[in-house]
Amino acid sequence: MKRKLTNYKRVKNLTNTYSDRVKFKEVDSLGIVWHGHYISYFEEGREAFGREHDISYLEIKRNDFSTPVVNVVCNYKKSLRYGETYTIKTFILDNLSAKIIMEYEIYNENHELVCEGQTTQVFVDRDGTLALYNPDFYQRWRKENNIID
Amino acid sequence: MKRKLTNYKRVKNLTNTYSDRVKFKEVDSLGIVWHGHYISYFEEGREAFGREHDISYLEIKRNDFSTPVVNVVCNYKKSLRYGETYTIKTFILDNLSAKIIMEYEIYNENHELVCEGQTTQVFVDRDGTLALYNPDFYQRWRKENNIID
Amino acid sequence: MKRKLTNYKRVKNLTNTYSDRVKFKEVDSLGIVWHGHYISYFEEGREAFGREHDISYLEIKRNDFSTPVVNVVCNYKKSLRYGETYTIKTFILDNLSAKIIMEYEIYNENHELVCEGQTTQVFVDRDGTLALYNPDFYQRWRKENNIID
Amino acid sequence: MKRKLTNYKRVKNLTNTYSDRVKFKEVDSLGIVWHGHYISYFEEGREAFGREHDISYLEIKRNDFSTPVVNVVCNYKKSLRYGETYTIKTFILDNLSAKIIMEYEIYNENHELVCEGQTTQVFVDRDGTLALYNPDFYQRWRKENNIID
Repeated sequence: MKRKLTNYKRVKNLTNTYSDRVKFKEVDSLGIVWHGHYISYFEEGREAFGREHDISYLEIKRNDFSTPVVNVVCNYKKSLRYGETYTIKTFILDNLSAKIIMEYEIYNENHELVCEGQTTQVFVDRDGTLALYNPDFYQRWRKENNIID
Repeated sequence: MKRKLTNYKRVKNLTNTYSDRVKFKEVDSLGIVWHGHYISYFEEGREAFGREHDISYLEIKRNDFSTPVVNVVCNYKKSLRYGETYTIKTFILDNLSAKIIMEYEIYNENHELVCEGQTTQVFVDRDGTLALYNPDFYQRWRKENNIID
Repeated sequence: MKRKLTNYKRVKNLTNTYSDRVKFKEVDSLGIVWHGHYISYFEEGREAFGREHDISYLEIKRNDFSTPVVNVVCNYKKSLRYGETYTIKTFILDNLSAKIIMEYEIYNENHELVCEGQTTQVFVDRDGTLALYNPDFYQRWRKENNIID
Repeated sequence: MKRKLTNYKRVKNLTNTYSDRVKFKEVDSLGIVWHGHYISYFEEGREAFGREHDISYLEIKRNDFSTPVVNVVCNYKKSLRYGETYTIKTFILDNLSAKIIMEYEIYNENHELVCEGQTTQVFVDRDGTLALYNPDFYQRWRKENNIID
């Protein structure tokens, strides 16, 4: 399987930190959070980032775009258990193409890295057409946040 | 983020094909299967592979091991909608290290590739110790299935 | 809390039987299917009933209605574990009001009743207006299936 | 289907209020929270109640009991949409039998009742035996919280 490596750097000073508690229903029969739920944790982080920095799902929708996820990577380092609180740090990469690439680090209460991951999203307009260039609203957002091309 | 590339080849003639139907609760507000649910689809494929080839979660547990997932990659190509039937093809890679690496291809009813992914699992014994070498039962299973080191 | 009792009878000869396998991700840290997932099992049964008897979610949608669930009851008798196959029997009640009331019985492989439940759905049109009488298409469906008012 | 009515009263001054935000993955293709997820919201409320009043899942486990849910009822009044914050109010009923009966009210940001529900849990010891009387630890907890038999 081809997995393209992204060497883009994280945009400095543009992050979000979000904490939540492991839910009982998220823990599997091994007593640890089922690995698929981390994709949901990434989404919690991404949406918290979006709310803080005005680039949430609803903000994007108001601009007549949706941003479906086209790639997910998750590396698991440790486990989370029921009752633990975890913290998601979300970063955005300074890529040139018409994509939103975000990285996530999830920490447990002891500040140990539990897992890290990355998602790539593309821009699709109301007609379902893939945008080849960053939409205007996103280009404006990049400028407002000092992400330089 | 470092993403190690795996260049291992798929073991020939050792696959599984499993079909299921998209559930209403799996479809998001965009009318398509929420991207995180594909991790669950991969697990369906992996377990169907395990049942067909005697290497299921329960079989592994009987040998006093568990095989937590330490890496997931998913590339999305198309969307699935409510009511559609999808088919998961699961493959196992011929890697040398003490890991189970599996690949997945999910197809829609028109035989179009919807997404492809990969999972990596390690062996952990009852005491929680990571196995550095393939456990005996897995080594036997490899031989029985003509996976040559 | 008020819980209205329904004394309507099940319509004879109008049932569906559907089987599926417990998924790993559905099992909680007690080793049994998490109780909330049975609501999803009911939906599997309801949709299988709908596909068999031409009253599925998509069929209803084609008639410009949706049927949101306004009440759920679930009584748990036994547990289901990972790897078990369960069978859902779905029944429809012969109620007079503009509601679809369905009952569910879930059995394990030993034909023991694992849980039973009931859902009530109302008809809402495209404008979001609640239907006070059965929509025409549903009234026709009732006649075709010999449900007598 | 028999649905026993509980006429027990809510214990006064023993409640919990918990708020959370609707997640993207919880919203279905109708744009509203899928009805089954409210069972999970009830669990959030129940566990927040448990943390506040020292009767959480982990506290019960330390006393060598588990408390499986044997009945769930949910009445839906309104819908929740993506991005909304909801508030769960959790109450405990003053029942005599060896059961924990809790009631839940979920409100939207406009303080409108979105749904109400009830869960019943029994006590099961380590050997899987159903307790016919309240376990000692729970009887103590009742006294500490002025729940009079």
